[in-house]
Amino acid sequence: MSLSPFAPRSFAQLPPIEGVKLASCEAGIRYQGRRDLMLAVLAPGTVAGGVFTLSKTASAPVDWCRARMEHGRARALVVNSGNANAFTGLKGRAAVNATAKAAAKAVGCSEDEVLLASTGVIGEALDPGKFTAKLSGLVSDVKADGWEDAARTIMTTDTYPKLVTRTIQIDGQDVTVNGIAKGAGMIAPDMATMLSFIFTDAPLTHLVAQDICSAGVTDTFNAITIDSDTSTSDTVLLFATGAARARGVAEITSVDSPSGRLLAQCVEQVMRELAHKIVKDGEGARKFIAITVEGAQNSAAARKIGFSIANSPLVKTAFAGEDPNWGRIVMAVGKSGEAADRDKLAIWFGDLRVAVDGEVDPSYVEAQAAAYMKGAELDVRVNVGVGAASATVWTCDLTAEYISINTDYRS
Amino acid sequence: MSLSPFAPRSFAQLPPIEGVKLASCEAGIRYQGRRDLMLAVLAPGTVAGGVFTLSKTASAPVDWCRARMEHGRARALVVNSGNANAFTGLKGRAAVNATAKAAAKAVGCSEDEVLLASTGVIGEALDPGKFTAKLSGLVSDVKADGWEDAARTIMTTDTYPKLVTRTIQIDGQDVTVNGIAKGAGMIAPDMATMLSFIFTDAPLTHLVAQDICSAGVTDTFNAITIDSDTSTSDTVLLFATGAARARGVAEITSVDSPSGRLLAQCVEQVMRELAHKIVKDGEGARKFIAITVEGAQNSAAARKIGFSIANSPLVKTAFAGEDPNWGRIVMAVGKSGEAADRDKLAIWFGDLRVAVDGEVDPSYVEAQAAAYMKGAELDVRVNVGVGAASATVWTCDLTAEYISINTDYRS
Repeated sequence: MSLSPFAPRSFAQLPPIEGVKLASCEAGIRYQGRRDLMLAVLAPGTVAGGVFTLSKTASAPVDWCRARMEHGRARALVVNSGNANAFTGLKGRAAVNATAKAAAKAVGCSEDEVLLASTGVIGEALDPGKFTAKLSGLVSDVKADGWEDAARTIMTTDTYPKLVTRTIQIDGQDVTVNGIAKGAGMIAPDMATMLSFIFTDAPLTHLVAQDICSAGVTDTFNAITIDSDTSTSDTVLLFATGAARARGVAEITSVDSPSGRLLAQCVEQVMRELAHKIVKDGEGARKFIAITVEGAQNSAAARKIGFSIANSPLVKTAFAGEDPNWGRIVMAVGKSGEAADRDKLAIWFGDLRVAVDGEVDPSYVEAQAAAYMKGAELDVRVNVGVGAASATVWTCDLTAEYISINTDYRS
Repeated sequence: MSLSPFAPRSFAQLPPIEGVKLASCEAGIRYQGRRDLMLAVLAPGTVAGGVFTLSKTASAPVDWCRARMEHGRARALVVNSGNANAFTGLKGRAAVNATAKAAAKAVGCSEDEVLLASTGVIGEALDPGKFTAKLSGLVSDVKADGWEDAARTIMTTDTYPKLVTRTIQIDGQDVTVNGIAKGAGMIAPDMATMLSFIFTDAPLTHLVAQDICSAGVTDTFNAITIDSDTSTSDTVLLFATGAARARGVAEITSVDSPSGRLLAQCVEQVMRELAHKIVKDGEGARKFIAITVEGAQNSAAARKIGFSIANSPLVKTAFAGEDPNWGRIVMAVGKSGEAADRDKLAIWFGDLRVAVDGEVDPSYVEAQAAAYMKGAELDVRVNVGVGAASATVWTCDLTAEYISINTDYRS
């Protein structure tokens, strides 16, 4: 696999977050010679909110975490790569139970306070023995600056680790938000899935953590697509240790309070940056494309038209070919099923208007559009002419390398 | 473009249908050195039914034909390849009007009795002068055996012409159904779109023609997908000349009569065979895959799950790689959003059961499944374990050649 052209030369140095310590190791689950198991130990009082795949065939760890969101307490997060523990039936549930038990024992908490995520091959039994044995060792290794190791450990077909940090002021104190993520294909059950873990020292109730997490994903992780496929394992978790409380930050009890809004905005920025990093590291991706749909009947319609464009193989291959083929965008608007006025439709590539009033722009010069398409980061704007609502989604191009990665036989 | 491995060595010889004469010629619309304009002249009294793209950005010829279905009379069909006359605004409508007028004059009928279809590049003005001049010449060239020429004329990125014929007995007389089609991508607005024209000498009312056409597409043309994209120009037209009336075949006034059912079944068979030919000639296709979903809540759900599998880039690339990657099928079932019992899910490749009760089949031997995947025509069966409804859809694999065809710059 070749390195994404968007891979950064160096990675954000994430500061410590009081109440979060991390460790990772080689458990030999599938890969050789690389870390594949991480543990985050969370201070007593940490709350968590989570958003999970809508798949009807969700993995055993997703089922486990979803049930834990009722109380939203968390003392440990265990993540492995190499095996998704999905479509593994009773054995999969047993592996989750065994892992939670071992982690609880090692950390000294209740099983109910352990959250879990797995990513990798689907349909193969995950032997919990492979890493339950490692958990007590990991507990003694945890450190406050284990972020990059953790971000590397959860990678599958990702070509670079994804790390983002932000600091904001609440009640006169610094509050930090750190996030890590992995992606690759939107999903490739062999290899890839979308996981993101976000940590803050802000003091919250678990319901606020849930609200911030749920609101945050809408225009970030839920506004990206690489190949339109949905993982059995997609998981986003937000952990709040509350450590800033000791420094005088008042507990945030509503997302609609000034501090709540500030934190929610910060978490959303972290999520958006991570989401963009995931798209830029999409399998075979060479272009990062923002698609903005305007003039739609409502924002759900704008989003649906956006995804119809962003998921169209013909649009995505045109981007790969650096072809300003706006006819394929017209097609994708049309197939979305949402209201659009064909005879008012307008399309821009960057600042170049290529189509207006339902036909090619009279001033269109193909050479200009073709030159624009050579860029690595592209903006497409479409006005569908029926209303005032808009939405932006992000995607990558569809290249021969995507096919090559995904036609490779698993073994 | 390399020839589809499914391209037949020879093509069906379609018999004449009384009341249908065809001609085609080189009008130089886009391609050089090949025919790109066809005319079918239909006997007085011919009725027509039609089904058109659901695209909100439908082409000018689609708008024209849809409006003509009110009365359902047809005396001429004019089809060109090379230019789709889609997203061409007022100019597009003017081109359609001019063509209908010229065809009506040449054939000696009302403009209202001319049906039209165009396929090819989108967003470029179609100069009607290029072929209105040819229409009177074409009228003198028409012949009863012009089927293969017609089928070749409407091709774009197709690698072979698609022709099917069937003869049935109604009221003791032979009644013939001939069909031609073109496909390639489900759509590639530059080049491809789905068009099919079916002709019979059976005597029908135009409402019966419409009913047979509408019912026929459901499990045929509307049950196939190549790349999930929908053309601005998709058109299926059924023409019935009624010539068999003179041989004593009674007029079919209801699709629920014995003759109506017989004819509807025959048209559906012709449509299914044409639909399969389209999939087998999908851009870059090397495998033809039938996906049957059983045990669904209702047939719409079964169909939606089937298309979720058939459209998944990860499933389609696994087929291209001859990888029996049933995990990707689990993923695609899950993302469909339709009810499925993960823990009762079962999957077969041909007769090999690879998964049962929500996990890998205990008797699964990967080498057997891998050997099965080497075939050119594959059957996948999925039982989702929640009901009794089923549906079958057909698709092809997603290969590097699809990417190569569609990343090629248009010019």
